[in-house]
Amino acid sequence: MIFEYVRKVNFYETDAQGVVHHSNYPRFFEEARGYYLEQIGYPYPKLREELKVDVVLLSLFVEYLKPLKFGDIFSIKYSLVESDSYFFKFRYDIFVENDLCAVGETKHCCISRDTRKVIKIPKELKERMK
Amino acid sequence: MIFEYVRKVNFYETDAQGVVHHSNYPRFFEEARGYYLEQIGYPYPKLREELKVDVVLLSLFVEYLKPLKFGDIFSIKYSLVESDSYFFKFRYDIFVENDLCAVGETKHCCISRDTRKVIKIPKELKERMK
Amino acid sequence: MIFEYVRKVNFYETDAQGVVHHSNYPRFFEEARGYYLEQIGYPYPKLREELKVDVVLLSLFVEYLKPLKFGDIFSIKYSLVESDSYFFKFRYDIFVENDLCAVGETKHCCISRDTRKVIKIPKELKERMK
Amino acid sequence: MIFEYVRKVNFYETDAQGVVHHSNYPRFFEEARGYYLEQIGYPYPKLREELKVDVVLLSLFVEYLKPLKFGDIFSIKYSLVESDSYFFKFRYDIFVENDLCAVGETKHCCISRDTRKVIKIPKELKERMK
Repeated sequence: MIFEYVRKVNFYETDAQGVVHHSNYPRFFEEARGYYLEQIGYPYPKLREELKVDVVLLSLFVEYLKPLKFGDIFSIKYSLVESDSYFFKFRYDIFVENDLCAVGETKHCCISRDTRKVIKIPKELKERMK
Repeated sequence: MIFEYVRKVNFYETDAQGVVHHSNYPRFFEEARGYYLEQIGYPYPKLREELKVDVVLLSLFVEYLKPLKFGDIFSIKYSLVESDSYFFKFRYDIFVENDLCAVGETKHCCISRDTRKVIKIPKELKERMK
Repeated sequence: MIFEYVRKVNFYETDAQGVVHHSNYPRFFEEARGYYLEQIGYPYPKLREELKVDVVLLSLFVEYLKPLKFGDIFSIKYSLVESDSYFFKFRYDIFVENDLCAVGETKHCCISRDTRKVIKIPKELKERMK
Repeated sequence: MIFEYVRKVNFYETDAQGVVHHSNYPRFFEEARGYYLEQIGYPYPKLREELKVDVVLLSLFVEYLKPLKFGDIFSIKYSLVESDSYFFKFRYDIFVENDLCAVGETKHCCISRDTRKVIKIPKELKERMK
């Protein structure tokens, strides 16, 4: 299942090359994941407060194909591409109109907010990820 | 007593106008305050861990006189300009060489990390602020 | 005339105090101003490309009343409070539901992108600001 | 040849999980690359101004092993691991004391600031990279 998250580039996200600074792409991916958790009915703030669980980033990959510019409206098309009891992966394609501007991948697990130890993906979340 | 904190502008701190984005100045001030707490012998991480105290920003003022640019080495000259049992204020002047580029002021108080209520400035800190 | 800009707090805008870091508020104000320029029919990217004009921040004031938290939906109610041939000021109130969380003020002028000198507010913009 | 870049975590780099937000690691790598260009005698501002060249990020990989915390002094040990006429790659290891906290890799090329087209690595830079 492919999700889509759309928004506009803010001025403060640009750098002196006149394009979006590369460190913002992982932030865009995070926004998209937040939207995903809302869509599946388990918003991240709820996950943090009710289940005392944090989602942690284990690895990040981004390939930058075409720079995003100030004022661009971009669309992130993304999906959960892998998942087992402990780990899950998202893949992201960022488009401006029909141009593929970047692709990305992130790998995650859940940790207990108290112990900061890795835990199984809580069943409340796991069920909704199907 | 005037403190000085010096560092270089990073590329990711610039924006598409080719200068440092204004939202970084409060971050520079925060770095300077961190350096101040080290200089008076009570680093902020220690304050947070040992006394369970957070320092909170109540108000911020910045006047932007001359833009900072990528690669600039800037110096923040700053001092504690007011302090009573609960509140304290810093004033900051940012220079590049002899040019005054910005001035700023921040007002703070301390809160308990547990309750997030305002508390008196802890005596361990207050004594060192004199 | 009062404008309103609404959005949600992103996780990456929080800090280790568990609330939104203060340096994000000027970014929220900037987003609101971008929305304002769209509303009056002169989006900032157009201003930059067609008129070769940059809008510059001269001063910033923020008073922090109640912290914004991750997941909060906040509303910025803001308006142009002063304007002459060269300068203009915005005032901002940030609300979460009915709680006033912060107030702010920013003062601006326009500069030529080529010379980076202060210029009169272009008439294309000035007319729409009325 | 291995370079080392050392600095302290700033408070504004943390997030509500109480650790450094993952989007800061690419910024730390950028700081390290800036230091590298200084060490080899061709600082990035000079590259931008004199040769009208921008260095562009083509891809980014980060593996997060152990979170960085506020106040941590971290060391980035990094080196140029690949380079031909057009492209070059850096590899980074981030340590806090003896703990390996993250590894990263970035791939770059040079572009003309005027045309934003890919160009050969300028010989002034290429020679110093050996």
